[in-house]
Amino acid sequence: MDADFLLDTPAARHLYHEHAAKMPIIDYHCHLSPEAIAKDEPFASITELWLGGDHYKWRAMRANGVAERYITGDATDEEKFMKWAETVPYTLRNPLYHWTHLELRTAFGIDDILNAANAADIYRRCNQKLKDPGMTPRGLMKRYNVELVCTTDDPVDTLEYHRAIAASGCPTRVLPTWRPDKVMAVENPDAYRDYIRRLEAASGRSIATFAGLIEALSIRHEFFHSQGCRLADHGLSYVPFAECTTEEAESLFAKVLAGQKLGRTEADMLKTAILLALMRMNAARGWAQQIHFGPLRNVNSRTFASLGPDTGFDTIGDYKGAENMARLLDSLDRTGELAKTILYNLNPADNVWVAAMIANFQDGSCAGKIQMGSGWWFNDQIKGMEDQMNALSNQGLLSRFVGMLTDSRSFLSYPRHDYFRRVLCNLLGSDIDRGLIPLSELPRVERMVEDVCYYNAKNYFNF
Amino acid sequence: MDADFLLDTPAARHLYHEHAAKMPIIDYHCHLSPEAIAKDEPFASITELWLGGDHYKWRAMRANGVAERYITGDATDEEKFMKWAETVPYTLRNPLYHWTHLELRTAFGIDDILNAANAADIYRRCNQKLKDPGMTPRGLMKRYNVELVCTTDDPVDTLEYHRAIAASGCPTRVLPTWRPDKVMAVENPDAYRDYIRRLEAASGRSIATFAGLIEALSIRHEFFHSQGCRLADHGLSYVPFAECTTEEAESLFAKVLAGQKLGRTEADMLKTAILLALMRMNAARGWAQQIHFGPLRNVNSRTFASLGPDTGFDTIGDYKGAENMARLLDSLDRTGELAKTILYNLNPADNVWVAAMIANFQDGSCAGKIQMGSGWWFNDQIKGMEDQMNALSNQGLLSRFVGMLTDSRSFLSYPRHDYFRRVLCNLLGSDIDRGLIPLSELPRVERMVEDVCYYNAKNYFNF
Amino acid sequence: MDADFLLDTPAARHLYHEHAAKMPIIDYHCHLSPEAIAKDEPFASITELWLGGDHYKWRAMRANGVAERYITGDATDEEKFMKWAETVPYTLRNPLYHWTHLELRTAFGIDDILNAANAADIYRRCNQKLKDPGMTPRGLMKRYNVELVCTTDDPVDTLEYHRAIAASGCPTRVLPTWRPDKVMAVENPDAYRDYIRRLEAASGRSIATFAGLIEALSIRHEFFHSQGCRLADHGLSYVPFAECTTEEAESLFAKVLAGQKLGRTEADMLKTAILLALMRMNAARGWAQQIHFGPLRNVNSRTFASLGPDTGFDTIGDYKGAENMARLLDSLDRTGELAKTILYNLNPADNVWVAAMIANFQDGSCAGKIQMGSGWWFNDQIKGMEDQMNALSNQGLLSRFVGMLTDSRSFLSYPRHDYFRRVLCNLLGSDIDRGLIPLSELPRVERMVEDVCYYNAKNYFNF
Repeated sequence: MDADFLLDTPAARHLYHEHAAKMPIIDYHCHLSPEAIAKDEPFASITELWLGGDHYKWRAMRANGVAERYITGDATDEEKFMKWAETVPYTLRNPLYHWTHLELRTAFGIDDILNAANAADIYRRCNQKLKDPGMTPRGLMKRYNVELVCTTDDPVDTLEYHRAIAASGCPTRVLPTWRPDKVMAVENPDAYRDYIRRLEAASGRSIATFAGLIEALSIRHEFFHSQGCRLADHGLSYVPFAECTTEEAESLFAKVLAGQKLGRTEADMLKTAILLALMRMNAARGWAQQIHFGPLRNVNSRTFASLGPDTGFDTIGDYKGAENMARLLDSLDRTGELAKTILYNLNPADNVWVAAMIANFQDGSCAGKIQMGSGWWFNDQIKGMEDQMNALSNQGLLSRFVGMLTDSRSFLSYPRHDYFRRVLCNLLGSDIDRGLIPLSELPRVERMVEDVCYYNAKNYFNF
Repeated sequence: MDADFLLDTPAARHLYHEHAAKMPIIDYHCHLSPEAIAKDEPFASITELWLGGDHYKWRAMRANGVAERYITGDATDEEKFMKWAETVPYTLRNPLYHWTHLELRTAFGIDDILNAANAADIYRRCNQKLKDPGMTPRGLMKRYNVELVCTTDDPVDTLEYHRAIAASGCPTRVLPTWRPDKVMAVENPDAYRDYIRRLEAASGRSIATFAGLIEALSIRHEFFHSQGCRLADHGLSYVPFAECTTEEAESLFAKVLAGQKLGRTEADMLKTAILLALMRMNAARGWAQQIHFGPLRNVNSRTFASLGPDTGFDTIGDYKGAENMARLLDSLDRTGELAKTILYNLNPADNVWVAAMIANFQDGSCAGKIQMGSGWWFNDQIKGMEDQMNALSNQGLLSRFVGMLTDSRSFLSYPRHDYFRRVLCNLLGSDIDRGLIPLSELPRVERMVEDVCYYNAKNYFNF
Repeated sequence: MDADFLLDTPAARHLYHEHAAKMPIIDYHCHLSPEAIAKDEPFASITELWLGGDHYKWRAMRANGVAERYITGDATDEEKFMKWAETVPYTLRNPLYHWTHLELRTAFGIDDILNAANAADIYRRCNQKLKDPGMTPRGLMKRYNVELVCTTDDPVDTLEYHRAIAASGCPTRVLPTWRPDKVMAVENPDAYRDYIRRLEAASGRSIATFAGLIEALSIRHEFFHSQGCRLADHGLSYVPFAECTTEEAESLFAKVLAGQKLGRTEADMLKTAILLALMRMNAARGWAQQIHFGPLRNVNSRTFASLGPDTGFDTIGDYKGAENMARLLDSLDRTGELAKTILYNLNPADNVWVAAMIANFQDGSCAGKIQMGSGWWFNDQIKGMEDQMNALSNQGLLSRFVGMLTDSRSFLSYPRHDYFRRVLCNLLGSDIDRGLIPLSELPRVERMVEDVCYYNAKNYFNF
């Protein structure tokens, strides 16, 4: 994992060192805490920074036979770190093995391979290093040359921390992302009504009807816009598409507010109506929108009861999606209300149809209007990235790709951008080496690397 | 993209140059215009020849932000060419990049990499070259050593141009293919009845019943046979399979003729009945049949309204198919009425089950009776071809594969056969290099290359 | 196919020769005949040993145009061998080509490439060699250093041959596996009732109710346990999951016993109830359980009528499965009744979701409690193995993988373990060569190779 890690050819090394490595980072999708950035406090320990909230590592530890006490339980920070260190040697060939050591090296200057034998020493050195003033949230973002991040925020969020960050002269720009998943969660009437009450409070409107819901959302959408938000994110397990009339939407919404359970088709109809309304707002305000689809969430009911969501029990689904995705995008495009859109599939078996799908709605208004998103979540590894870029290359234009994002909850995950850039440069360098790209095209490829690493995202989003 | 393009090992180069490159082309599936071949007129410009009807290029231009006016609109030929030339540098890693330059070199002798700077000059040189007498449809087919092509024809077609071509002593044999997709399109009663009227006219029979439909089709099937047709092509989005009685088929057909919409299951029943009857005709006359399945067609309703079909808005579906495909083939095999069959899947996620499926209906009557078709449409690229050949190799016998076809509307697409042959030789050459195939087997591999490139198709079809 | 076959780098060769090759074989899933092992009689001919029951070879012969008479028909052993020999040169790139020659070399000392020209000579030499005393079932297992095999056995089986083997001092341990597929086959009431009669006889209980069924099964489960069985195998085409009450299960079971056909949902409900009960038994007795899912069986009704099952007419299905699999495992985990479980998918398009799925139910009780099984059946080839190991590596811990099994009916198939070990060592060796694994980790990788080849299986199963 030295300077030429993942770079198998001279062209790959040239592209990476002379072009990719120099680009700032635009991390347009993450789950960092705006509060943590606003407060910018030092981290108590490497365990807090590195193992708190990292469900990738938790899954690996569980697979390695580590008891939950040492993962999410009441063990001490040092005990938890030791258990992770014992697990690391068993993660060979998993991306965690690379991430772990890239993070240790780039953030802490530690070149050792972590294992049980050196864990206590590394724990001590990391905690010592965390006392450096440059190891706060903002310091880490500066260290990794992060120009801009977009967090993930609920429509009811006050965005107070975003304002505080902006007011404080933070060198990294921090913008909110509109993530209205709870607005779509009509399956559970009780929780939904609670959420509607919060939305009423945030918007200052009472919500008694579907029209009222949309109006309240529009007020919040406008508020997010006023705070610099230019990006929405829609998380879906499967892609629902069942168009209904306004009357039907009203009636279904009333049913949910009355505490009644909707049938599957009814729920799909209401969700479709809400989703279309939300996406029309995105188009009207010139935002880009992301559609993340494919996960099965909280599949382990025992741990969901004890640990709650986002603890490592979400997984990859195998829902059908092409027909509904086409109908959803078409329904918006038909009326000129399809915003710039990025599609992310979680199941890599869907890569090729997704890569083909985006081309059906490129309308020539700008380059790469509809995008296939980078290898997401379970696909955030060498093969996942390569497969996504190969699918996109074969079905569309890799040169117009807006590139990498971390989707991370950790301030230590920026080496994943570096990982991605090495994979990208290696793909292109290997193509040059094999003669698939003529060497005379090198200047064009250099620009392509800089575009995918930085300029395409900079130009795509109206930040 | 020189003589050894895509050929990474000495064995690959030997196999290609000494064996693959020398084989004539049998392009048993294309969408060339028989009229254009019959008339054999020179092309007005490279734009007409190269960009007219090429929805692959159109999709790339749209993804690159080119306005529709320069794609299918009223811009001049030169303007359209310029927009394509501007797009080409952005197609790096897309097969269009390779196709474009292989076509420029092999047809026009132009070795330059097309871009905005040299586009005007290349446009002029190409148009100049198109005045050569050898640059007509037949001239191009001769230039690429094309022995035989099969066009794609509707059962109501007069095949007059095929007769004219045959009478004219054209050195390339041009045969029709029976493509009865409109006979299956029962979803739209109005369009269907119009088609039935045309079928009545072509067959000389009135069609008032399902039995009458089959009789009229049989007359046209026999007519196609008399004109040299030995190949059918059945295009399906998903594989319908819902067997019904003759009485049910009669009743459903009557319903459609009466202008009534069928439900989904009803439509599947009638389609299954028609498809089985058509496939029995194929078996009875000793034809081979192709089943192309998987596309979602015309998914963009805005452009469908303005541009019509086949303009670049079809895409890859993700329908389930294995069980229905097995039942369809079994239903025919059971009565000894399963013709030689080639299955083409559009979604490469289906590659492996399709490669396994064909083995269930190999009946020992001839080698490779049931075939998995070459990487089709969106899979017509290096990875798509490799994945198809690897799936077929692992599940069946690559040595019995009938090989490549262009599926193209363009007289310039024959370099795709060359592309395929290089990919094939490189797979085999790499296997030799890695020791997966012993070097002592080289003579066997040489024969295998010639078989897949030419002899298998020559022997498989009863042309 | 020499000593370094499939081993492309020095590290790969080191790992294989110094570590993998030395490990004994634990073949924890096969279809060998316990009777044949108990009787340990010499084979009449290479045809009996090599072509009898090998549907992989049969499918290849059919695809090569060989008539059924020479495959499963009344041709002589020599004629059948000749037809296979003629087919072998056409299997280049199919795993049969490698298996054939690895088997000829390791069992018979024959290094020639089999073809029509040398077939008669090789036939004679093999048959001569089969007269050696070391060429019996037990002799072959000893030759290949097989420490333990698990056969596949029905709950009604007496296991008398297993007892005979154990009593005879056979150096290879031979244990039964509990395979209750017929208990789940509720779709066909007549055959089901016949089976229930056999289960009554075997268990000594009359079975008039669902509760009675479970009790009888529990008696047989306990009997299998007493005979050393520690492993269950559940074969499913798709994963049914439709929970029902005990009352519903009773009522559905009564319906089947009364000879009535269940609807699809009813059948799923009853199958789910039976499956959950069986899996709870596995957990209660500390067994491991395998779930094999994905095949479409007996899809060719003509050959099913003439040849019966397991003759080469099963194929890969494309059923959806993630949601039901999650619910099945969750239902057991919720009450602490999820046994150690190995999931095998037949369609490789499912690899990644399966590799992700297992992580949701790792409970920290032991390392690798839930496993993704090795490339199964149609995936038992280089690419199939690589894809499975890459999916597992990226989503989980390859180091905890229990590794290879033959799933074979032949005493000659142990070279497949060797094949797997070479593929494994080559993946790891290539990673070292590319710098994906630091060379300093070689001792860790050496241990990982030994673990995956042998120790993980030895530790995982409570044999």
